[in-house]
Amino acid sequence: MTVHETDALVVGAGPVGLFAVFQCGMVKIRCHVVDALEAVGGQLSALYPEKPIYDIPGHPSILAADLVDRLAEQAAPFAPVHHFGVQVESLAREADGRWRCGLSNGETILAPVVIIAAGAGAFGPNRPPLDGLERYEGTSVFYLVRRREDFRDKRVVIAGGGDSAVDWAISLSEVAAKVMVVHRRAKFRAAPESEERLKQLAASGAVELVVPYQLHALEGEDGRLSAVVVADLDGQTKRLEADILLPFYGLSSNLGPIAEWGLTMDRHVIAVDPATGATSAPGVFAAGDICAYPGKLKLILSGFAEAARVAHSAHDIVHPGEALHFEHSTTSGVPGVK
Amino acid sequence: MTVHETDALVVGAGPVGLFAVFQCGMVKIRCHVVDALEAVGGQLSALYPEKPIYDIPGHPSILAADLVDRLAEQAAPFAPVHHFGVQVESLAREADGRWRCGLSNGETILAPVVIIAAGAGAFGPNRPPLDGLERYEGTSVFYLVRRREDFRDKRVVIAGGGDSAVDWAISLSEVAAKVMVVHRRAKFRAAPESEERLKQLAASGAVELVVPYQLHALEGEDGRLSAVVVADLDGQTKRLEADILLPFYGLSSNLGPIAEWGLTMDRHVIAVDPATGATSAPGVFAAGDICAYPGKLKLILSGFAEAARVAHSAHDIVHPGEALHFEHSTTSGVPGVK
Repeated sequence: MTVHETDALVVGAGPVGLFAVFQCGMVKIRCHVVDALEAVGGQLSALYPEKPIYDIPGHPSILAADLVDRLAEQAAPFAPVHHFGVQVESLAREADGRWRCGLSNGETILAPVVIIAAGAGAFGPNRPPLDGLERYEGTSVFYLVRRREDFRDKRVVIAGGGDSAVDWAISLSEVAAKVMVVHRRAKFRAAPESEERLKQLAASGAVELVVPYQLHALEGEDGRLSAVVVADLDGQTKRLEADILLPFYGLSSNLGPIAEWGLTMDRHVIAVDPATGATSAPGVFAAGDICAYPGKLKLILSGFAEAARVAHSAHDIVHPGEALHFEHSTTSGVPGVK
Repeated sequence: MTVHETDALVVGAGPVGLFAVFQCGMVKIRCHVVDALEAVGGQLSALYPEKPIYDIPGHPSILAADLVDRLAEQAAPFAPVHHFGVQVESLAREADGRWRCGLSNGETILAPVVIIAAGAGAFGPNRPPLDGLERYEGTSVFYLVRRREDFRDKRVVIAGGGDSAVDWAISLSEVAAKVMVVHRRAKFRAAPESEERLKQLAASGAVELVVPYQLHALEGEDGRLSAVVVADLDGQTKRLEADILLPFYGLSSNLGPIAEWGLTMDRHVIAVDPATGATSAPGVFAAGDICAYPGKLKLILSGFAEAARVAHSAHDIVHPGEALHFEHSTTSGVPGVK
C-alpha cells in the first residue's frame, strides 16, 4: 500500500487549491493535491471553461480555462504532487499529530496539515438510480468516453438528451455495431446542428432513438451487460439488447466524505476561524467556497486571500519555532521564476 | 467652492482603491477617488513600477506598473472620477448621514460612504527640517521638476545623493546658470555611469559639488530665495547664492489627516470589523494595508478581498432596502466589456 509523506495535503485542485499550493510554496510548505476530477481547475474546468470571468483582480476579462492555466503555472515552481480522479475518504489523527488521509484508490497521504479547498465538494457524474448499477460500472457502464475504439462493434445505449449524449451518439455511430439513444423527451437540449445531424442518422437507421423512454433496469451477469430495460411514461417496459450503457446526465457536486470527518459545520460548509482559516480540528484548514465565517463572500478572489491566510497559519505547524520572515514576492522571488 | 456629490469616496488610488472602484461598480456604487500622488497606482507606481510581482493570483509574474494598468482598465467601465495631487483633510458627518470630505484643494465631496484604501498613507517628498521652508515651497523650493525650462539661467542648489539628485544635476547643468549639489557624503548612491558623468561635470566646472555638507538655513524674502546656507560636519557654515532649491530626499508615506478623523486605530492603522470592513464610524470602511483585524496579512491580494467585502457592505448604505442580487461576474457581465 502506497503511503505518501508530505507537509500539506490540499483537497481540491480548483483555483483556490492551486493558489494554496503557491502560497504554501512561498512559505516552504510542500503539497500533495487530491481531486475527484481528472484535471486541475475544479468548477472552472468542469462547468464553464469557456466563460469569461470579469472579477479576478488584474484581469479585466479572462476565460475560466485560461485562469486555471495561469494558476497552475504559478503553482508549478513548487512542484505539487497531483492525485487525480480520487477522493479523500477518511481522515484520522496519528499519535505524532499528523493526519492519515485515506484515498479512494487505496493509497494514503500522511501530513501534519490538511487544507480543504474543495469548493462545493467533489464533482462526479449524475448516476441513474438503477439497482445493481455499481456491478457494471467500469466494465459495461461508463460516464465518459476515453477512447472511441473501446466501443467498436459494440451495441451501445446512450442515455440523456444534452450535448454529450447527442455528440457521442453521432460519433460512436461510426464505429459501434448499434447506437440507441434513450431520452425521456422527443426534444433534445443540444446544439441545433447536432440535433439535426442526429435526426438524419436516426432516419437512415444508423442510430435508434428510444424516446420518450427512461432507464428502468439492467440485465447481465459478472459485470457484463446483456440488456438495458427502458420504460415509457406509462411504465410500459421494453428490452434493448446491449453491451454498453453510457449515462450522460451531467455532473454534480457532493461534499461526500468531508461531511463525515467530524469538523464543525455551518449548514453545508466548514466553519473556520477567519483569523487563521483553522477548522475545529488541529492542523486542518479550509479556504474558498467550502469554508464559512461571518461576512464570507463566495468569490474566487476571496478564496485566494483565504488560501494565503491558511498558508501562513500552516507555516507554524510545518516549521514550528521558525519565524516566518514575511517577505513580499518582489523581494523574495519565486524558485525557477526570473 | 466646488462640491461633488457621489455614492462613495475612495481614499487612495493604489491597487486596492482601484479594485474597490471595480467592486463598487459591480454593485452599482459610483465612486470618486482621491490620491496625493499625480497618478493611479500608489506604492506600485511610486516605489517599484518596474519590479515584477509574483503573488498576484493568476499572474505568475507581472510588473507593478502593468498590474496598475490592468486594475485601472478593470475599473474604467465604472467611470470613477479621479482627484489627483490632493488629500482628504477633514471628514465631518452631515445631518443627513452623509460625509462631508474636505480636500486640500478646497473642494468638497459629499458621499454616504467613505472607503479608506490609503495603504501606508499619503506619499509625499521628505522635506528638509529648515525654518521657514514652507514660505519658499512652490516658488523657490520644489520637490520635483515638471519643466526643465523653468530653471533656465537660474542658480540651482540640488540637495541629496541618490539617482534623482545626480540625474537632475546632470540634466539641469545644460540650462541653469549654475548647479550646486549638496550632499553629506562624497560618495553618491546613484547608478555608476551617472555618478561618473557627474564627476566629469564637476571637474569641468559645469557643476559644483558641495560635499560633505548638509542644508542648514534659507535666506530670502517674499518667497524668493537668495541663498542656501550649508554646514559641514563640524557645524562650519557657508553661503551658496541661489534662486532655487531642489531637495531630493525621496518619498515617504504619512497617515496624515486620517489619524485625526477620530476612527478607532490599532497602532498606526485603522481597526475594522473583518466581517464587514467597517471602521468605528458609520459608513466609513477601510481596506488594504491601512486596515487591521485579527489575522490580517499585508498582501495586495488580501486587500483585493477586503475591497470586495467593503463594496458589499457599502451596498446596504447606498441602496438601502434593495436586495443585493449576488451574481457572479460570468453571469452579470460588466458594462462596456464584452
